[in-house]
Amino acid sequence: MLPDITFLHQLADTAAKETLPRFRSSVAVDNKLSHDFDPVTKGDRAAEAAIRDMIESRFPDHGILGEEHGSSGLDRKYVWVIDPIDGTRSFIAGVPLWGTLIGLYERGRAVMGVMDQPFTKERYIADGKTTRLFRPEGEQTLKTSACEKLENAIMFTTSPRIIEGGALKRYDQLESRVKLARYGADCYAFSLVAAGHADIAVESGLQPYDIAALIPLIEQAGGIITNWNGGRPEQGGDIIAAATPDLHAAALRILNG
Amino acid sequence: MLPDITFLHQLADTAAKETLPRFRSSVAVDNKLSHDFDPVTKGDRAAEAAIRDMIESRFPDHGILGEEHGSSGLDRKYVWVIDPIDGTRSFIAGVPLWGTLIGLYERGRAVMGVMDQPFTKERYIADGKTTRLFRPEGEQTLKTSACEKLENAIMFTTSPRIIEGGALKRYDQLESRVKLARYGADCYAFSLVAAGHADIAVESGLQPYDIAALIPLIEQAGGIITNWNGGRPEQGGDIIAAATPDLHAAALRILNG
Repeated sequence: MLPDITFLHQLADTAAKETLPRFRSSVAVDNKLSHDFDPVTKGDRAAEAAIRDMIESRFPDHGILGEEHGSSGLDRKYVWVIDPIDGTRSFIAGVPLWGTLIGLYERGRAVMGVMDQPFTKERYIADGKTTRLFRPEGEQTLKTSACEKLENAIMFTTSPRIIEGGALKRYDQLESRVKLARYGADCYAFSLVAAGHADIAVESGLQPYDIAALIPLIEQAGGIITNWNGGRPEQGGDIIAAATPDLHAAALRILNG
Repeated sequence: MLPDITFLHQLADTAAKETLPRFRSSVAVDNKLSHDFDPVTKGDRAAEAAIRDMIESRFPDHGILGEEHGSSGLDRKYVWVIDPIDGTRSFIAGVPLWGTLIGLYERGRAVMGVMDQPFTKERYIADGKTTRLFRPEGEQTLKTSACEKLENAIMFTTSPRIIEGGALKRYDQLESRVKLARYGADCYAFSLVAAGHADIAVESGLQPYDIAALIPLIEQAGGIITNWNGGRPEQGGDIIAAATPDLHAAALRILNG
């Protein structure tokens, strides 16, 4: 049985206690990979530890895959997939477009997801049936836009400069077709697609924890999310989310060309 | 005599009544320039009209330069320079990094400025002496960071893809030297430099109303803001803001090369 939405709120609240007080404070930034710039804050590690504690105590038979503290029980029926701070570059630059991502896989399929942005006080939750946005002002059920054509589409990617080789060429071709391309939003972009404000989110080279929570947010709001080959997105890689099947198909014809 | 800060708050409150209710609603988007994508919402026009009304009634002898409704009295001692929604592309895509910009020039020199972001409830004000951030939780006086070296700097630009020709080459050289480059933040980036979270904001081809309000925010927080030739930034063009004189000089050696 899936956990109820109250538990998802509790996980997000717990994580926010570790992340928000460190946002825009002087944070210690480590370089996780010495050959690349991949900042990780203490908030990142503390938030994941707190989330894992709550899951292990409430659902001891579930598996967990986290960005910071590794994996356990990946062969279980239910596996939680966690990125405590997605968008760490935004986080360290003071931009409130990062988010805490908590997804739940059931036999390898993403079924529930949370994207929490505690500074702007936006919490996006897919509870297994619908996607909702919770704000202090109230909650609303989300639906992706009706956009079917690339020339009408608002598209997001984190940065064209982190897409490599042949993928960049295909991305550029896609960007030249859409109405408006925006950069730098990470998980926030997928939430905007779920909410119907943007129409396409496209990324390259994602890890499972970058995308797990966002899959149900898109699908339970009526959108389509796959890899660039049209396959399931749960394992990450090159990912595209679109508001409608027609828009998704049009983008895929270019990305999968 | 400069207006007091209460009047600046009133202007920002008035503008927010026109902008915030239209953010993430279905906005009518015009194409102001038929050959380019330059969306303007009704909120943009209504906010500027409301700001102008307040200024004209309170300071009838002041001039006004606005993005939407033209200019009047530009030869006056005091001239207000207004961009009701800077970052319209963020606005229409649902990203809360746009802002209402209200600057005041005294004999051509920027002396007061407001950057208001009503969704995240951040209001940055330079009152002639200091730069402060007002949030529901309280207010704080801002100071730019102590960053002096490019290799330690967090840098923002709206998009490298809107920088043209030789300027792009110099921008790219600068980007290759900094620690972290982020895209897509418009006026919000300059506010982050004023607040010490980011270290450099660099833009190309700005109008005066894109930058007027941001000049005092940077300068009264201790930072440096000029055009790429090192001259005063009040007339727009290619602009660079930096946290410290050393950092500014290092960036300028590349941009002005």
